[in-house]
Amino acid sequence: MADNRPIGVFDSGLGGLTVLKELEKVLPNENIVYFGDTGRVPYGNRSNDTIIHYARQDENFLLSKNVKYIVAACGTVSSVAACTAKDLPVRFSGVVENSVKDAVDSTKNKRIGVIATSATIKNGSHKRLIKNYLPDAQVVDVSCPLFVPLVEEGWVSADDSVVLDTVKRYLKPIVDAKVDTLILGCTHYPVLEKAIKTVVGNDVCLINMGCSTANAVKKELEGLDMLRQERSKPTCEFYVSDVTEGFSKVAQILLGQGIENDKVNLVDISKYEGSINHN
Amino acid sequence: MADNRPIGVFDSGLGGLTVLKELEKVLPNENIVYFGDTGRVPYGNRSNDTIIHYARQDENFLLSKNVKYIVAACGTVSSVAACTAKDLPVRFSGVVENSVKDAVDSTKNKRIGVIATSATIKNGSHKRLIKNYLPDAQVVDVSCPLFVPLVEEGWVSADDSVVLDTVKRYLKPIVDAKVDTLILGCTHYPVLEKAIKTVVGNDVCLINMGCSTANAVKKELEGLDMLRQERSKPTCEFYVSDVTEGFSKVAQILLGQGIENDKVNLVDISKYEGSINHN
Repeated sequence: MADNRPIGVFDSGLGGLTVLKELEKVLPNENIVYFGDTGRVPYGNRSNDTIIHYARQDENFLLSKNVKYIVAACGTVSSVAACTAKDLPVRFSGVVENSVKDAVDSTKNKRIGVIATSATIKNGSHKRLIKNYLPDAQVVDVSCPLFVPLVEEGWVSADDSVVLDTVKRYLKPIVDAKVDTLILGCTHYPVLEKAIKTVVGNDVCLINMGCSTANAVKKELEGLDMLRQERSKPTCEFYVSDVTEGFSKVAQILLGQGIENDKVNLVDISKYEGSINHN
Repeated sequence: MADNRPIGVFDSGLGGLTVLKELEKVLPNENIVYFGDTGRVPYGNRSNDTIIHYARQDENFLLSKNVKYIVAACGTVSSVAACTAKDLPVRFSGVVENSVKDAVDSTKNKRIGVIATSATIKNGSHKRLIKNYLPDAQVVDVSCPLFVPLVEEGWVSADDSVVLDTVKRYLKPIVDAKVDTLILGCTHYPVLEKAIKTVVGNDVCLINMGCSTANAVKKELEGLDMLRQERSKPTCEFYVSDVTEGFSKVAQILLGQGIENDKVNLVDISKYEGSINHN
């Protein structure tokens, strides 16, 4: 048995490319379809109803590409719209639950930090899940609204004064709480890993949601005997809802490699309305 | 003669509130309808086609409110979608042309700086217009993508190291070029005026697009005898396409006063499609 269909990955924009990067490392023989909702990014400051509405459209689009698995490579969607998973005809994974499991496994002093966008922190899904697994954990969660713009501007170096000052200011409550584990609860944040390490110190274990998720997806596909068995070189298709000037620069920063413009396909995502495949 | 209909003001989000603030100062007896497209903000990194499409919907919404005048209080729309004005049944003003006229009047050494979002700078409308009025002007234009997130986070103080370092880094080419006039080409930027002044010095004349536009609208309405003559207290109605958590905080920063949540009305802006009133 095998399942040669692609894995579908979506995000509100391009942040999910850090998850794609980890999936490609851990599952190098899988075909992948990536959708980035660049026409409506960011989801982080939308209302919950809007985020759920958008997530259903994104999922419908991936289903139209005959995927065997959907990864919501987006902290905001994983936190706010994980409810859409129950209506899907395929397996689904968000990035939040996987990262929380890894954080709970990692912590020794039961003090866990979470940093993410405002919407994700406000939703509190990491905190709630951590408390489910580890009721006596102390969770310190902080929103860092400037991290995404810093990353997209390419200001990410641990030697950059603006980057370091910003990281220090946001992470002060995390450092003060002496956490031993810190979840990078937004897919853009792994790019700031060095600067974050400089501020919190090397003893703090940083949880990259992309790593956690890629490992979990691999385990699940292996367990279900659903890995792709074809020997031909796997493909990775990119779809976006708006093609913008900064795309290749930001993709380079997040994925660590460029994506040529002719490999990026434009999708009118509002057409993937309704409940064709779920609900 | 008089025209008691309201002035319509729209923006991709809340930045236009700095323009509204100046309109209220200069035209304190006018009724105003403000629409902020908070469900689709920011326009700055959308494609030109998308920006024009959105601008038409925004204008249709304001026309449905029976406005006598439309102000595109958005640098991106003024730069990219001013072409929509020719189809409107009412007078229209963007913020770009007014600010350019003031800059050209102000400069003595014919060196003018422009700072704005990436889309506005890339479009180059300020530069082109300056060159129309003053062909031998030297224009130095710089995009400052982190300014909007800084303002929305409330990090705006001229004493803040992150703010000052960021302003210094972006504005270095402006300072090096020894401009005597600097257009704040994005409606969020007036909030950073003090920090910008600290970096460029007090001798540089900063052009606030909201001030330029409010003065121009006043002059036009006066000339056409279209000022509101009613004596009752003028009203200001707020409409947005998504109600979000940060709304009141950001409104406070940009408008300099809070807007109570029950005064903000939600609009499904995608319904204002088509060419009911123009084209």
